[in-house]
Amino acid sequence: MAADHRALLRAMFDAAVNAAAPALCVPPCLPAPPKGRTIVVGAGKAAAAMAAAVEAHWQGPLEGLVVTRYGHSAPTTRIKVVEASHPVPDVAGPAAARAILDLVKGVGPDDLVLCLISGGGSALLALPDGDITLADKQAINRALLRSGAHIGEMNCVRKHLSAIKGGRLAVAAAPARVVSLIISDVPGDDLSVIASGPTVPDATTQADALAVLQKYGIEASPAVLKQLANPAAETPKPGDASFVNVANILIATPQGSLEAAAKVAEQAGFAPLILGNAIEGEARECGIVHAGIALQAAGFGQPAAPPCAIISGGETTVTVRGKGRGGRNAEFLLSLAIALGGRANISALAADTDGIDGSEDNAGAIIGPDTLRRAAAAGVDVVKHLANNDAYTVFSGLGDLIVTGPTRTNVNDFRAILVPAWTRQ
Amino acid sequence: MAADHRALLRAMFDAAVNAAAPALCVPPCLPAPPKGRTIVVGAGKAAAAMAAAVEAHWQGPLEGLVVTRYGHSAPTTRIKVVEASHPVPDVAGPAAARAILDLVKGVGPDDLVLCLISGGGSALLALPDGDITLADKQAINRALLRSGAHIGEMNCVRKHLSAIKGGRLAVAAAPARVVSLIISDVPGDDLSVIASGPTVPDATTQADALAVLQKYGIEASPAVLKQLANPAAETPKPGDASFVNVANILIATPQGSLEAAAKVAEQAGFAPLILGNAIEGEARECGIVHAGIALQAAGFGQPAAPPCAIISGGETTVTVRGKGRGGRNAEFLLSLAIALGGRANISALAADTDGIDGSEDNAGAIIGPDTLRRAAAAGVDVVKHLANNDAYTVFSGLGDLIVTGPTRTNVNDFRAILVPAWTRQ
Repeated sequence: MAADHRALLRAMFDAAVNAAAPALCVPPCLPAPPKGRTIVVGAGKAAAAMAAAVEAHWQGPLEGLVVTRYGHSAPTTRIKVVEASHPVPDVAGPAAARAILDLVKGVGPDDLVLCLISGGGSALLALPDGDITLADKQAINRALLRSGAHIGEMNCVRKHLSAIKGGRLAVAAAPARVVSLIISDVPGDDLSVIASGPTVPDATTQADALAVLQKYGIEASPAVLKQLANPAAETPKPGDASFVNVANILIATPQGSLEAAAKVAEQAGFAPLILGNAIEGEARECGIVHAGIALQAAGFGQPAAPPCAIISGGETTVTVRGKGRGGRNAEFLLSLAIALGGRANISALAADTDGIDGSEDNAGAIIGPDTLRRAAAAGVDVVKHLANNDAYTVFSGLGDLIVTGPTRTNVNDFRAILVPAWTRQ
Repeated sequence: MAADHRALLRAMFDAAVNAAAPALCVPPCLPAPPKGRTIVVGAGKAAAAMAAAVEAHWQGPLEGLVVTRYGHSAPTTRIKVVEASHPVPDVAGPAAARAILDLVKGVGPDDLVLCLISGGGSALLALPDGDITLADKQAINRALLRSGAHIGEMNCVRKHLSAIKGGRLAVAAAPARVVSLIISDVPGDDLSVIASGPTVPDATTQADALAVLQKYGIEASPAVLKQLANPAAETPKPGDASFVNVANILIATPQGSLEAAAKVAEQAGFAPLILGNAIEGEARECGIVHAGIALQAAGFGQPAAPPCAIISGGETTVTVRGKGRGGRNAEFLLSLAIALGGRANISALAADTDGIDGSEDNAGAIIGPDTLRRAAAAGVDVVKHLANNDAYTVFSGLGDLIVTGPTRTNVNDFRAILVPAWTRQ
């Protein structure tokens, strides 16, 4: 692969991550300090990094607590960072959520509650309401994750069993001013969906939550059923007076990161074409479709004329059938490489903006027109490795992993394909 | 669904089919009649319709024979049409191939051999060479179809076991002038791949064919191995003198059909965006990816600004896990409808240009923003039907099948998605 293509792809990915990096996207969105106290709370994979960014730029006193995923901490001095389990909550989550509610208790109209919200916050902010136990919530959460329910359905249930989600944090923080800085990891950037919208009114109802449980045949404990039947436990709805002092501000989105990468491509002379910021589907099939589009660009100048950069985001899925190692981005890429067959001098990168592709130590990987040839020369049967969900091993062997470590933010996957101008090779 | 969107989608599909319809694309490409005899031969799903088009427009005497798939005949008077089995050859294929070789035997330099070639011709023109039996060829063909070998690999083997493919028909027809009119159904429109290129020199070798058999662990009979080891049985190579009087003319392609549909969309005010003429992958996953792209268009004006028509071709695949009815286009569409969730007023059509989606009686189907709502009102669980590979049943029940009957041509699948301008509904 041409070194300049490799460097450009990496620069595009870095731009995508940086566009969502708390150190860069939090400071410009910080509100003016209040007359009273400033209390920082938050939850999500980016919560610690967001807290560190607040500390670095905040004028005046500050206190608070945020909860992030194990391994996603960042150094802070005034805002306490606690770690908890994701995606199935453990006891650390409820303790943190309780501490957050305690922190905002007794705030007044001159105080500011600064909420730092990012993906993963829903599981991390587990605080069962009413008589519901953590075991109840864990069981429901596991069943939802297995059920095929979409994120909106899962969060509808979660909100109605929680003492903090679905706008309840904002209710608890009234009459203080509440500013939520939000990094989106959901298709459509629906504020009520990201981390189950702790500071966003909830248009869904207890009846909706019951319908989701019924739809997927999920058994609920008596405590859960009691909670969903208790009118006093309904979430606050749009128009509720508790939200008059609440501002929810989207500070980073998947689209924003794709646009940042597109600019880098454009500056390098590759016309960017963003296919979608929420492209989903089985990773290997998604790779085949992207190959078809890239070859159309190379052969027919459609849907974009080379030199062009075809860009997409979103989260693909991997149906695990083999026993190998590999996240969805590595699997997407290996399938893409096979479908491209080394044609048209095409290179590509796919990586998770959170820095971790699945459960491996890499963010993603990179391919070039020579990937298959180099793999074959090394005696690697790429088709067998793909069938065994073992793309990581292929790219690791080729030295083509992209390794960043946890980036402490998350705007989903980033994929870019470079189709160069046609030249006689 | 708006009636005008439904009508536009259907008009786009009709334009795609018509661009490859023998009655329309054969006549303009007919050569001038020769001084001597004109012998028409051919093979493929479109062969009979192409023969009928030749008869309708040819000035002067004519004789010949073409072989097509069972059920794909068309009325002819001077060119004999025989039917044979596809994709695994039966005895009718070799008899037809033998008759074709007999027809061109003894032609002279003043004669014209007009070849009518289309997809499916490779299986239909089965004529084992050397000591190979039809059973040998059938066994190898079945093993190749099961193996996952791509079309180029399959045809490499087929050519080297055949007495007529891989340029051997042109060799047999020398010194006559040979004009091949070719309808492409293969990605990249490689003339040597379509119907295994009976009038096209073959750059692949006996060693390549052996390597394919070895790669996929396909056992070959002694007669097959003998044939692949016999230097006299090698296919004619590029530069061979037999091809000096041969013209291979591509008269219809998947791309041409997509472009024809694009024009229809453009005239209706929908900016066309062709994603690719050879988009492959599992049909349902392909539907999810197309949904992501269409929603990006609706939400962000990328990769095309609404009103736009997102168009693609190629052949998706269906991994059958259920027991329902449905071809790849119906399955693509149902998955697309589910992923779209009725959003953004989007409509779409997917259909096979050959008029038969899989093994059903429909070419494809059509969806609109109301598809899910109408299915739900009829008590139809679309997710269950999709899981059961039963998309045909859903669209049949909704009255949303596209039924054309066999079109007697084939430029693969046609898919179009209309994303209208945003309007308050």
